[in-house]
Amino acid sequence: MKLIKYPSRTEWAEILKRPSLDTENLFDTVRSIIDRVKDEGDRAVKEYEAVFDKVELSNIVVTEEEWTEGIANVGEELKAAITLAKKNIETFHAAQRFTGQKVETMPGVTCWQKAVAIEKVGLYIPGGTAPLFSTVLMLAVPAKIAGCQEVVLCTPPGKNGKVHPAVLFAAQLAGVDRIFKVGGVQAIAAMAYGTESVPKVYKIFGPGNQYVTAAKQLVSLRDVAIDMPAGPSEVEVLADASANPVFVAADLLSQAEHGVDSQAMLVTTSEDLLLEVVEEVERQLIELPRWEIAAKSLSNSKLILVRDMKEALELTNEYAPEHLIVETESHTEVAERVVNAGSVFLGSYSPESAGDYASGTNHTLPTNGYAKAYSGVSLDSFIRKITFQEILPEGIAAIGPSIEIMAANEQLDAHKNAVSVRLEKIDNKKLK
Amino acid sequence: MKLIKYPSRTEWAEILKRPSLDTENLFDTVRSIIDRVKDEGDRAVKEYEAVFDKVELSNIVVTEEEWTEGIANVGEELKAAITLAKKNIETFHAAQRFTGQKVETMPGVTCWQKAVAIEKVGLYIPGGTAPLFSTVLMLAVPAKIAGCQEVVLCTPPGKNGKVHPAVLFAAQLAGVDRIFKVGGVQAIAAMAYGTESVPKVYKIFGPGNQYVTAAKQLVSLRDVAIDMPAGPSEVEVLADASANPVFVAADLLSQAEHGVDSQAMLVTTSEDLLLEVVEEVERQLIELPRWEIAAKSLSNSKLILVRDMKEALELTNEYAPEHLIVETESHTEVAERVVNAGSVFLGSYSPESAGDYASGTNHTLPTNGYAKAYSGVSLDSFIRKITFQEILPEGIAAIGPSIEIMAANEQLDAHKNAVSVRLEKIDNKKLK
Repeated sequence: MKLIKYPSRTEWAEILKRPSLDTENLFDTVRSIIDRVKDEGDRAVKEYEAVFDKVELSNIVVTEEEWTEGIANVGEELKAAITLAKKNIETFHAAQRFTGQKVETMPGVTCWQKAVAIEKVGLYIPGGTAPLFSTVLMLAVPAKIAGCQEVVLCTPPGKNGKVHPAVLFAAQLAGVDRIFKVGGVQAIAAMAYGTESVPKVYKIFGPGNQYVTAAKQLVSLRDVAIDMPAGPSEVEVLADASANPVFVAADLLSQAEHGVDSQAMLVTTSEDLLLEVVEEVERQLIELPRWEIAAKSLSNSKLILVRDMKEALELTNEYAPEHLIVETESHTEVAERVVNAGSVFLGSYSPESAGDYASGTNHTLPTNGYAKAYSGVSLDSFIRKITFQEILPEGIAAIGPSIEIMAANEQLDAHKNAVSVRLEKIDNKKLK
Repeated sequence: MKLIKYPSRTEWAEILKRPSLDTENLFDTVRSIIDRVKDEGDRAVKEYEAVFDKVELSNIVVTEEEWTEGIANVGEELKAAITLAKKNIETFHAAQRFTGQKVETMPGVTCWQKAVAIEKVGLYIPGGTAPLFSTVLMLAVPAKIAGCQEVVLCTPPGKNGKVHPAVLFAAQLAGVDRIFKVGGVQAIAAMAYGTESVPKVYKIFGPGNQYVTAAKQLVSLRDVAIDMPAGPSEVEVLADASANPVFVAADLLSQAEHGVDSQAMLVTTSEDLLLEVVEEVERQLIELPRWEIAAKSLSNSKLILVRDMKEALELTNEYAPEHLIVETESHTEVAERVVNAGSVFLGSYSPESAGDYASGTNHTLPTNGYAKAYSGVSLDSFIRKITFQEILPEGIAAIGPSIEIMAANEQLDAHKNAVSVRLEKIDNKKLK
């Protein structure tokens, strides 16, 4: 960990620098996989599964039997925990339902927005060391609340050719329609273009490594929408002397264990807290099964001492962390002044883990400073707001002349004419 | 125009095909311009302005004097029209303000979303034959309502080195902070990375040619957000025998005049209407100043006769038009069944021109079938919804054990530990 005391403003950019993400240099490799899947469908998908996931599949669809069998292997305790989390995620996302109001901008001119679900969505759940069943909930639950008609999920199978039971359970609970045993670039390509087995979807969600990210970026250039650009996960703890160093250390470590490129940062006004946190991190670290990853990631992590809360907030808003834990005396006031962050956790008893799993908020959030421009996944991510307008003759009579003038000045006379023919008709009626 | 009668479903894909957008083949050219602007700032911007816009600029900022002088050249009639349009756009977008509600997902677990404006946004307004002052309103008005702190605008100057007066007027009226005389790829690069004159922004909005689109896509891969991918503009008129062929023809032509690659389509259940529209288009076309562009664009346009309204709607939802005009007897019912469209215009007196200019809805909309996954620009485009959560000891006591189980099963023990240390503290307090 790097201890940085009272950095000057000119040093901020360097301190807040993140590891650079260069997916463009993967585009050629990734493009060739995408193109083959686009052209050859399932056959290419299976070949890539054999190469990358070391598994020979005769069928990439998870059958009903496999699904039922897998779920039977999930313990009751885990089922109950996933069910509780699902309920809270559902409660929070259902409260985000949008009801547009009709607005009469002028007499006879009524405009409104209507939320309509994206019909087909694809969820990607990475494989690797841990089965991310929590991400299944975070993506499938809002998709179902939004009313998406087809929710499919791709995830790489284990060496045994099977999908992890907990992923199957979460998917069933959340209402996923179909699961495919496909991972990596080939999964993104399959959902973007469709294969004999995998339907083409309109938007793809979910985390992944840099190849998956590059694939999502490439297919989103013209063919399908994606949730957001992804980068390594990160947390900032913003704390003052009132914070509990044991909690702060635990929160930093929970981020650090994600991967060696994870970012964990402490910004504090208290030098005592900073020193206590350092000791506490060392104490807790050695107890962790994933201590090696955490230690590596921590070697890049920064503990920053600042002059006051104002400076702390400016630094925070400049960094725009994915997760921000505010453990300060008046955390409500501090939170008011946060403008750039993905998800904010207030007070001593709101660890990031709560939002990662079970409080109800979404854990798919903007990393890498994207919080300055992007929101995390929410119900909004699964809908479109279509605008409607209904204009009555009195309405077009009121706005028509202005439209004619503007259109003529933009040299778009046919635009003008579309109004003129209507105004004429109204005039003729009046004359009669 | 191509008349297509009762096409079979197998023909739909071919009929609904759009011209393919290949921006990837421009990436190398565009990347080199972006990189030079990133490295050399204003100097590179000015050089590219000399090359592409044929204008030598000593200063790319529009000064206050230039701004005032330009506005003095705008006629009162046009000023009044723009002012009326601005008021309606403001009324409709102000009604979109988001107020998050606090949701207690479990006792002691409170979660909410808060809308926060994107601090810095950049608007791009293309040059070319017509000054798109209407687009200035469509982008700057919601940016100001959202509360964006810095709203900058880039637009290529005319050969005289000046920005069109109507653009200056609309920008002032809508509250744009600064205008820069920069167009094309160099404008996108300047706003993405900042130069001595142009501030770096967090999100870039606005239409443009394929080079501008490619530049927006490239900078959005890792550095800045963009509004949405862009393609040629398009309209579909969905009409039955009750429709007025004069209006329908005028609406098709108003799309066709945009450019030779514009898409104008009629889907109708009435053969009589179809034939009347063909005649009417020919009659109106010759009156248009831009008839050559319109005629070229119309040569690709399709007039499709279908069996019934059900089929008409299925075809429409498959096409997902940017603009959809519904001129049918029971247009409210028909509109209920539209699931894929950018903006929908209902009834005989709601021409697309109304939404393009002055009814209040936004005209920056998803083209190219993107309406299946994207919304048009709205107030949402200028904010982020940050999630907050505040968990009390009783709350973490309720959800903590489930988090511990889930985290352990995802092999994330530090995540588990961040909860455990808090539960221990609560237990210890109870024991005392």
